[in-house]
Amino acid sequence: MSADQYVVGVDYGTLSGRALVVRVRDGREMGTGVFAYPHAVCESTLPATGEKLPPDWALQVPSDYIEVLKRAVPDAIADAGIDPADVIGIATDFTACTMIPVTSDGTPLCELDAFRASPHAYVKLWKHHAAQPQADRINALAAERGEEWLPRYGGLISSEWEFAKGLQLLEEAPEVYDAMWRYVEAADWIVWQLGGAYVRNACTAGYKGIHQDGRYPTPGFLAALNPDFAGFVTDKLDHPIGQLGARAGSLTAQAAAWTGLPEGIAVAVGNVDAHVSAPAAQAVRPGQLVAIMGTSTCHVVNPDHLAVVPGMCGVVDGGIVEGLYGYEAGQSGVGDIFAWFVDNCVPPAYHEAAASHPGGLHGYLTDLAAQQPIGAHGLVALDWHSGNRSVLVNHELSGLILGLTLQTRPEGIYRALVEATAFGTRTIVEAFVSSGVAIDEFIIVGGLKKNELLLQIYADVLNLPLTVAESAQGPALGSAIHAAVAAGAYADVPAAAASMGGRSAGVHTPIPANVAAYDALYREYSTLHDYFGRGANDVMRRLKHLRRKALA
Amino acid sequence: MSADQYVVGVDYGTLSGRALVVRVRDGREMGTGVFAYPHAVCESTLPATGEKLPPDWALQVPSDYIEVLKRAVPDAIADAGIDPADVIGIATDFTACTMIPVTSDGTPLCELDAFRASPHAYVKLWKHHAAQPQADRINALAAERGEEWLPRYGGLISSEWEFAKGLQLLEEAPEVYDAMWRYVEAADWIVWQLGGAYVRNACTAGYKGIHQDGRYPTPGFLAALNPDFAGFVTDKLDHPIGQLGARAGSLTAQAAAWTGLPEGIAVAVGNVDAHVSAPAAQAVRPGQLVAIMGTSTCHVVNPDHLAVVPGMCGVVDGGIVEGLYGYEAGQSGVGDIFAWFVDNCVPPAYHEAAASHPGGLHGYLTDLAAQQPIGAHGLVALDWHSGNRSVLVNHELSGLILGLTLQTRPEGIYRALVEATAFGTRTIVEAFVSSGVAIDEFIIVGGLKKNELLLQIYADVLNLPLTVAESAQGPALGSAIHAAVAAGAYADVPAAAASMGGRSAGVHTPIPANVAAYDALYREYSTLHDYFGRGANDVMRRLKHLRRKALA
Repeated sequence: MSADQYVVGVDYGTLSGRALVVRVRDGREMGTGVFAYPHAVCESTLPATGEKLPPDWALQVPSDYIEVLKRAVPDAIADAGIDPADVIGIATDFTACTMIPVTSDGTPLCELDAFRASPHAYVKLWKHHAAQPQADRINALAAERGEEWLPRYGGLISSEWEFAKGLQLLEEAPEVYDAMWRYVEAADWIVWQLGGAYVRNACTAGYKGIHQDGRYPTPGFLAALNPDFAGFVTDKLDHPIGQLGARAGSLTAQAAAWTGLPEGIAVAVGNVDAHVSAPAAQAVRPGQLVAIMGTSTCHVVNPDHLAVVPGMCGVVDGGIVEGLYGYEAGQSGVGDIFAWFVDNCVPPAYHEAAASHPGGLHGYLTDLAAQQPIGAHGLVALDWHSGNRSVLVNHELSGLILGLTLQTRPEGIYRALVEATAFGTRTIVEAFVSSGVAIDEFIIVGGLKKNELLLQIYADVLNLPLTVAESAQGPALGSAIHAAVAAGAYADVPAAAASMGGRSAGVHTPIPANVAAYDALYREYSTLHDYFGRGANDVMRRLKHLRRKALA
Repeated sequence: MSADQYVVGVDYGTLSGRALVVRVRDGREMGTGVFAYPHAVCESTLPATGEKLPPDWALQVPSDYIEVLKRAVPDAIADAGIDPADVIGIATDFTACTMIPVTSDGTPLCELDAFRASPHAYVKLWKHHAAQPQADRINALAAERGEEWLPRYGGLISSEWEFAKGLQLLEEAPEVYDAMWRYVEAADWIVWQLGGAYVRNACTAGYKGIHQDGRYPTPGFLAALNPDFAGFVTDKLDHPIGQLGARAGSLTAQAAAWTGLPEGIAVAVGNVDAHVSAPAAQAVRPGQLVAIMGTSTCHVVNPDHLAVVPGMCGVVDGGIVEGLYGYEAGQSGVGDIFAWFVDNCVPPAYHEAAASHPGGLHGYLTDLAAQQPIGAHGLVALDWHSGNRSVLVNHELSGLILGLTLQTRPEGIYRALVEATAFGTRTIVEAFVSSGVAIDEFIIVGGLKKNELLLQIYADVLNLPLTVAESAQGPALGSAIHAAVAAGAYADVPAAAASMGGRSAGVHTPIPANVAAYDALYREYSTLHDYFGRGANDVMRRLKHLRRKALA
């Protein structure tokens, strides 16, 4: 009788990395390990020098990612109680677009003495939003020239993506730009560290790197942005592309030492946290919208036809599932808005009352909020504390709370913020539906699926049946599924998903009276959304400009 | 050598009453006593029964006012260390429009067994805002009929005032309305308790009771609102009017027992906290805008001509100073917005850090906020948590904070709220100036004058030199000045003010760079003010409606 085989999926999130050991034959989750990045997200100062960072910056330190391999993977193996010799493959998923400037051997520039003090030499995390001016120029020029790739991204390129970040790097730190061999997605850098070879994954290349139908934006377009940017694709970006689920390399001796896994096992092509989660939730048929909800929310859906959907992040042929068009949309801030509120806006009495609550302050506020009838708080909020990724694609937007009175209490604001994120999701759903991409089911993956109030609010606001992924570790399980395919245990990702993924049987069904009540509040949200988001009043952009000037 | 003579001024605020003993010959403040109303403001439940109150209600319990006489006046005498036999008069000022339904002997209906459980039988505090539907009808009808008194109130009657509150009383509790002999301003009820006679003061009659040129709204107008309301003026309101500084009566034996003051001394006609403060600050010439800043702000200014100023609370010929037109404007929420924020929106770490701060949490937040360059918080707020008294006169409006990001911290929001109240004041100043009422100096009276950051923000936002009243107890000193006049120690209020009032020499001067920076933020405030306040988007009204429906 042969021993069971296992794979390891590693999910690189915004604040920590999580490793999951999964049994190949049925997806059973055997053990897990988590390691929080020691440098977390650098938003105010550069750790190496203490230098103050400008507003809207968000950096990370790449050695933190290696620490995850050294700590979380062995912890997961130990937790699983398995023999590491039975592990046949490893795969990773990462936040995106998170970018690292590297030398030709993969060394991040920030690890060189010459660039240790240079903020631009560090990892720019997905939520680094300081490249908005560059994104604005890219969008204006692409619209003016009628670039054929633009509609694939809903008509707008995000400041979070490769070209905006690359142009900012060139213009603000040309010495770093010149010194880097390639500008690499962290999703691919970590695979390079594991498997010894740089393979650019099809997913980020398509969604974040404007790679469509085998082509990137032309040198002529890039030169029109900035003459020195003409060679960005050829000199800094272009590289052979690996398909999702393919083998990128074999575990190196060094990576084997880091992780305690056998040298030479399969290392899968890199992937993105959101996209990898759809197979984990077995949500790969047209009509199923998967929301990976955590710090932010990423939405993916796989219709069988191409449509132009305004404000989407992107569409890539086979970007998630072979044979279908993989659409991505997103909300830049969700869980981190709730965390910001809990950390900064809740008085001591609530902290004290929540001390004995099993769900902590979030759980306590949720319980209080659940007692309120819809609309009783008198509030409506805009969920733009981190800007708006879809459908407005504008990170100069900011959050708003309206309806405050002297009777307003923290649980009311908390509920209004949860509702605002649901309204933001509905805006995305309506953009899909009105563009001909049907949505008939909403599936939540990620930490927020534990919040019953949030789930019912989403079901009611969206007026869609809502299920949740069975796994508490959707992205890590999704990565493990890709590891199994890369190791040759399954023929392809859908086959592996059928055996290894899963969704809970329970469904949150919309309650008609709640749906009607939320329709009224959603109309208010939509009016404010369009007033502040579509140019009638650009106050948010002007306030960000004033803020930057004041802090300069 | 004859002994010095003294007067007592009692200032009835929103949460407490303060007595001040003042020397007649020079206004020297000898001693003070404060007593907080045991029932404070009843906004959620009726104390007598625990019955839940509807949204926007604000009641008080009249016996609390008598307690102030029993506690704060003797305390002030003791603090002054004077012989009470040397006190020659007492005067009071009160929040307005604060209304009590009474029997013919002055007994509040809520003190009768029959009405103890009836919320409508209690005092309706100035900030009871549940009569907005009635105010809307009064305004619509007055505009339609072209009532000549309407322009004197900036074209809009407030839900806070006598006719709106009276109509609500009639329509929601006809049994209380029928049982009451008169609907009396608390300002006059307390004088009745002191001096034994009901005298209606000219100030509230003019500003809150639509008494203009000797006339009230006609029975025909009232009948058109509601046939049963036709007799409101003749049956419930009309009464001989006393002039400011006149003697309303003599201290009764019972009131002498309560206060420890000599029976028979002068009791002055009632007055309003804001209006009484102008003489205390010697601010009685045209061009001087006096802001009495506390829970809310009341503005008074005395031009020498009549003008139509949109959105003012009212103008009364000689309403403050004989020979000049007394204008009143106001902001419904100022200090109570800051208090709401400090009580409900500041996390434990700030409370801990502020524990050793002499200014408490307000002082700690102010210190942090003072370190921020203008605009660095990236925020703009609307100061409508209690609605808007001027210039929009709409208590269905509510507060807003815009520009929130994950980097937003409490001190930023705190500063934005202070700035919002300054922008609200500027809106009022601009309404005066554009209507031909010049303003060349801004004088602050009240507790908030201690906050140096707030004073400089106001000077910069208004671009006006700013002085503060010398007395820490502007309204109580103003009442004492009126007591001295009522007792015959001075010929009139201006003469008494010249001897007894005072302003500090120091002036806060606008800083040109700050003025320019705030001009930009004020433009944003104004755009939002008009968008949400003038009908382009009535979302705030609709949210209040949804809230009432949800809580019903």
